Amino acid sequence: MLEALLRLPPGPVDLTALDPAATPGLDGGGKTEGKAALAALGDPLADLQERLFAEGRADVGHGRAVLLVLQGMDTSGKGGVLRHTVGLVDPQGVRITSFKAPTDEEREHDFLWRVRRALPEQGYLGVFDRSHYEDVLIARVRALAPVEEIEQRYDEINAFEAEVLGAGTTIVKCMLHISADAQRERLQARLDKPEKHWKFNPGDIDERARWSEYRQAYEIALERTNTEVAPWHVIPSDRKWYRNLAVGTILHDTLARMAPQWPLADFDVEEQKRRLREEVPVR
Amino acid sequence: MLEALLRLPPGPVDLTALDPAATPGLDGGGKTEGKAALAALGDPLADLQERLFAEGRADVGHGRAVLLVLQGMDTSGKGGVLRHTVGLVDPQGVRITSFKAPTDEEREHDFLWRVRRALPEQGYLGVFDRSHYEDVLIARVRALAPVEEIEQRYDEINAFEAEVLGAGTTIVKCMLHISADAQRERLQARLDKPEKHWKFNPGDIDERARWSEYRQAYEIALERTNTEVAPWHVIPSDRKWYRNLAVGTILHDTLARMAPQWPLADFDVEEQKRRLREEVPVR
Repeated sequence: MLEALLRLPPGPVDLTALDPAATPGLDGGGKTEGKAALAALGDPLADLQERLFAEGRADVGHGRAVLLVLQGMDTSGKGGVLRHTVGLVDPQGVRITSFKAPTDEEREHDFLWRVRRALPEQGYLGVFDRSHYEDVLIARVRALAPVEEIEQRYDEINAFEAEVLGAGTTIVKCMLHISADAQRERLQARLDKPEKHWKFNPGDIDERARWSEYRQAYEIALERTNTEVAPWHVIPSDRKWYRNLAVGTILHDTLARMAPQWPLADFDVEEQKRRLREEVPVR
Repeated sequence: MLEALLRLPPGPVDLTALDPAATPGLDGGGKTEGKAALAALGDPLADLQERLFAEGRADVGHGRAVLLVLQGMDTSGKGGVLRHTVGLVDPQGVRITSFKAPTDEEREHDFLWRVRRALPEQGYLGVFDRSHYEDVLIARVRALAPVEEIEQRYDEINAFEAEVLGAGTTIVKCMLHISADAQRERLQARLDKPEKHWKFNPGDIDERARWSEYRQAYEIALERTNTEVAPWHVIPSDRKWYRNLAVGTILHDTLARMAPQWPLADFDVEEQKRRLREEVPVR
């Protein structure tokens, strides 16, 4: 239900019309209820993820995997989602990739090259902290590639994601939507606390001056890549607890729909029990 | 202290002399106390790991990283350590690699090739679930390579690990030591519970029949790769709670000795505060 509320409808996107401080689907519940709800989500989410992992290990899941794509402005909370939401499941089944500015080697290839290499194997929950969307976001705002090339990338992304889905990986795309005011407060907090200085970069303020350009780049990207097979969710993220809960719920509901099952034994269980019972003493 | 107790002394190794059900360093504390101690370790461990990660991001840690190598017989609890101990820290800063039987591509290269590719980047806690040690363990027991080649690998491993350390990565090697009886119970439990069948493989019982050969292979490997720069710890692992606590404590103490610090700002904090205060309104 919450997932349906946050799923971006097809058509033009106006982020200014979406309140980053809203808490859709929570019927007036606040921070306390939200944190309790996230904690309560832990076990069911971990159970579903373990079943998916088990399917992958047993090679009975038809190659299924999940890829969570996290995008959002600086300070929108990608790291917080990793810690508080992704941190709820067994790290053994999780593969996180943080995409930074491309390296020289990466630059020599197509923009999707490094992304393909980071796709989750069967059974895994892959998480992209930033992603191929940077190549139509900062790349557009900062003109890091010719306009015609960027224009082509939206279609390339859609084709790529359809191919990934075809290979069995369900893609969950979440745009963490914060207000410019919330970002200022968070940057301020990073400046105020010495143990947060490492998270701050003076360039963050330069990028911030282009807030509306980034917003427009997001609006274009969201509209053009909001496909049936890999739709976008816009997560109101001014409230951290809501953001963590919302992403967790979407992840949970996605896994629940996939309904991964404990693999059936591909061996005779009774025979193996007998072997173990009758074995020569081992020491 | 616990770390010193579990650190393997130099010289010949006799695993039969090390009790897998022991709980060294705990002064008679049991499961309840052990679980509480692990929970209490969570915050300090996560704090140290985040500092290491921060150093890496800020590029002020001289390339430092940590690599936790987990080895042990089937059911010894490598997965349990990943979930309960490694799961205590922010998954954003963790990179887990599970080494399986080498792929065709991996087989075309030197046995350390795939291991090098999986080394943690600076700031990260890398975890190897099995490792290059398989190439002197199962490879030895199952004669997967010529004897002379395996004989050379111990020195190659030592040279490799010294090189890794030289590049800034502290290696923490833990052998999860279980008894044959504990393994039988755990295999039995996997057979008894349908949701654990995926973890069972009939081949596990075949390997079990070679228990003493594996033990000897471990003893040789432990002795010959128990270097000053990358010593082994033998973790009594018949009690899961002790195993998780022991690995967590060793990891914590290792990080504490590295003493990662919050990076100092490489910018003028006051100037950035002023910029943020005086910026043109952003929307």
